Amino acid sequence: MSDDARDKAPRALNLFIQGLILYSIVTVALETMPTLSSYGLFFRISEVVVVVIFTVEYLAFWALSKDRLRYPFRFMAIVDLLAILPFYLQLGIDLRSLRALRLLRIFRVLKMGRYSKALQTLGEAFQRAAPELAVVGYTVALIILISAMGLYYAEHDAQPEVYTSVPAWSWWAIVTLTTVGYSDVYPVTPVGKIIASAIMLTGIGFIAVPTGLLSSTMTDILRERREKGQGAQNAP
Amino acid sequence: MSDDARDKAPRALNLFIQGLILYSIVTVALETMPTLSSYGLFFRISEVVVVVIFTVEYLAFWALSKDRLRYPFRFMAIVDLLAILPFYLQLGIDLRSLRALRLLRIFRVLKMGRYSKALQTLGEAFQRAAPELAVVGYTVALIILISAMGLYYAEHDAQPEVYTSVPAWSWWAIVTLTTVGYSDVYPVTPVGKIIASAIMLTGIGFIAVPTGLLSSTMTDILRERREKGQGAQNAP
Amino acid sequence: MSDDARDKAPRALNLFIQGLILYSIVTVALETMPTLSSYGLFFRISEVVVVVIFTVEYLAFWALSKDRLRYPFRFMAIVDLLAILPFYLQLGIDLRSLRALRLLRIFRVLKMGRYSKALQTLGEAFQRAAPELAVVGYTVALIILISAMGLYYAEHDAQPEVYTSVPAWSWWAIVTLTTVGYSDVYPVTPVGKIIASAIMLTGIGFIAVPTGLLSSTMTDILRERREKGQGAQNAP
Amino acid sequence: MSDDARDKAPRALNLFIQGLILYSIVTVALETMPTLSSYGLFFRISEVVVVVIFTVEYLAFWALSKDRLRYPFRFMAIVDLLAILPFYLQLGIDLRSLRALRLLRIFRVLKMGRYSKALQTLGEAFQRAAPELAVVGYTVALIILISAMGLYYAEHDAQPEVYTSVPAWSWWAIVTLTTVGYSDVYPVTPVGKIIASAIMLTGIGFIAVPTGLLSSTMTDILRERREKGQGAQNAP
Repeated sequence: MSDDARDKAPRALNLFIQGLILYSIVTVALETMPTLSSYGLFFRISEVVVVVIFTVEYLAFWALSKDRLRYPFRFMAIVDLLAILPFYLQLGIDLRSLRALRLLRIFRVLKMGRYSKALQTLGEAFQRAAPELAVVGYTVALIILISAMGLYYAEHDAQPEVYTSVPAWSWWAIVTLTTVGYSDVYPVTPVGKIIASAIMLTGIGFIAVPTGLLSSTMTDILRERREKGQGAQNAP
Repeated sequence: MSDDARDKAPRALNLFIQGLILYSIVTVALETMPTLSSYGLFFRISEVVVVVIFTVEYLAFWALSKDRLRYPFRFMAIVDLLAILPFYLQLGIDLRSLRALRLLRIFRVLKMGRYSKALQTLGEAFQRAAPELAVVGYTVALIILISAMGLYYAEHDAQPEVYTSVPAWSWWAIVTLTTVGYSDVYPVTPVGKIIASAIMLTGIGFIAVPTGLLSSTMTDILRERREKGQGAQNAP
Repeated sequence: MSDDARDKAPRALNLFIQGLILYSIVTVALETMPTLSSYGLFFRISEVVVVVIFTVEYLAFWALSKDRLRYPFRFMAIVDLLAILPFYLQLGIDLRSLRALRLLRIFRVLKMGRYSKALQTLGEAFQRAAPELAVVGYTVALIILISAMGLYYAEHDAQPEVYTSVPAWSWWAIVTLTTVGYSDVYPVTPVGKIIASAIMLTGIGFIAVPTGLLSSTMTDILRERREKGQGAQNAP
Repeated sequence: MSDDARDKAPRALNLFIQGLILYSIVTVALETMPTLSSYGLFFRISEVVVVVIFTVEYLAFWALSKDRLRYPFRFMAIVDLLAILPFYLQLGIDLRSLRALRLLRIFRVLKMGRYSKALQTLGEAFQRAAPELAVVGYTVALIILISAMGLYYAEHDAQPEVYTSVPAWSWWAIVTLTTVGYSDVYPVTPVGKIIASAIMLTGIGFIAVPTGLLSSTMTDILRERREKGQGAQNAP
């Protein structure tokens, strides 16, 4: 699990690489803005410099690793490779969109220092609530499908040109159940509105259950830690 | 409560039936897409095959059940029947929309294995919070009606052509209270906006109370289980 | 606090009055539908019958009360009066909208039977969380005002005809913070969008804090009850 | 931390200043309404009067403070100065928008009386949940960026004139993840809708985790207080 060489790398180097990842992501985002299209040359040079540094970093940590055979198959090493590979492959086809994979490198920062315990707490809370969350997810998938079918048959004649199939109404069901509520489609018939009302009032439960689950498992984890701590204190 | 014969059925058969249910639902959904209308014959044949298998399965488990007189009146057996009945009845009228009932069969999967305990926990949490949830539901129904009446009288003159009755504004109230917020209708007068603001800020409480209720009852259930577990350990 | 005569009234009478209240509210709502305007005479007769029964009920319980001087000033008696008064006063001006006050009568049902304990639990949870909820409400009011001012100055030049004042942008701030999100107004300038993004991400906290508060106070109430119960069991 | 002279000021003066702050904010908001533009002279006189009183108050409390050298550098004194400074500086340029800083003065009220303990509880809950909230915030930032990139490449060809860059789609991602859901932009392609569906269903988790965190840390704080209280009672 450990990155060996990287763990011993000076803090300044880690911060520099983190900064470079952030810089790289921001330029990838800004490059798409039409108002900045005149800076095209700057973005291309910037990209080359970033990829060269990332490549040197990747090769250096590979060379410094204890187990050079397994290193390239580690999860974080694969992420590092995915961050630079699209650049080398795009000679033929346009793989620029894959540069978004570079974002995955940011997760490395979460493995550092004081966040690792927080990550562990969150992970444990999700793991304990997993079976209940699975049941909730399953029920939600059912509600989405039933809603989509119900509204398709209710609205089919009233809005024939707008939404014409069950998969299309599934999009509506997801937009509604998550309470996002775009206005690209909504029921207009009385029957459709009654079905939709029932779905929306259910949507509240959809939010309530996962929140309640995480809250109670996290409360449980905090109590266990406290009791373990007290037990240790009471021991002579 | 037990399905007898079905409980002893080989795991492979259960998985096959589950897969067939999923396949059946997906084809029912895809059949409605206009871009796939040329595959009409395939969908019709597919439907016949699925219903035949479901019918054979239904009759086989009936034949294998210990109590053949009561079997058809069991909840899961009725669900199984509802999944195939619309096909046989649709000679006269179009009952295709009832095929959505097939979705209910999916609930069978939740009765299996490791999810049953999670279902039980969720059910117990809802049951304990039931009286409080009923009071919340009652209050929400009141808020919806009062909002609808208030906005009908406030917006009646400003938007006469859009929303013209209290039931129509009830739709608005539900869309708003659940924070979905389509833009098919919204208040335009200052009085209407002030009433709507009060309703929306209440909407937050609408989400907060059920979530808090479920969270606290679930915390309570987890503590009870822990204490019971400790009690069992302490016992000699 | 007690309604004396009403408490001793037969259950059938209470149910009949409750049903009549519900019927009255539904007809008041339906009467506003243009498609039902031809049933105007029915609605008018229905209204007269309802008000006559409510009046007889009001006078009867007054006559049966032990303290006839104070009875008309009780909260529930005032609500009962408000439910019928608009009918008698509307000879001169149109007070039909005040018939919505009849909804208040529904609260009487919550005082009955098994819901009273749930109401008490909810009330206690809100009461304990009151100071924290007040601080949250205060902060929310501040965020709404600051957002409205910020967006007014950011969007003033870009959308001069749409939203032209700080109170108008306050409506936007409330619609956004509660995550309802109509599309009647939204920022279009980069500065406006950045400010709005900050407000929306804060909006999540707006939902999180009251929910967390209610959840923790309700958990606390449930623990207290359990400990009191255990104490009573342990006592000889 | 203490305001010395202000702490000993009579309650009536504090209430008067609070009322004046509220009045000042309301007039700043109303002044922007086009329908009230004819009252321009009133608003200007009102502003002068308010600023003169605020200036006298500022100078008086400075004069009465024990440590006159450090007083102007205190946080609340800087806030007080920011509330009046824009008025004196706006001779040259228009700094009216900075008058919104006056809102910060309202925070003073939260330092008073019975709210200080509630503020402390909320502050402690946020502080304890800080590392977990930071991890959540980090993950959310990642989800926003990945979503924006994904939808930019998915929708680029279908809606070239609407949304044309990754930063523009970031706005969409924030509007959607917070479940606000304006309808100024939404995916129209099947791929875009599938990505968006995944993001929306994640958005629920986005709300669930901070709520659960605050709920469990607040439950923890309440338990600690209770145990401390019981310990004190048990002590002789």
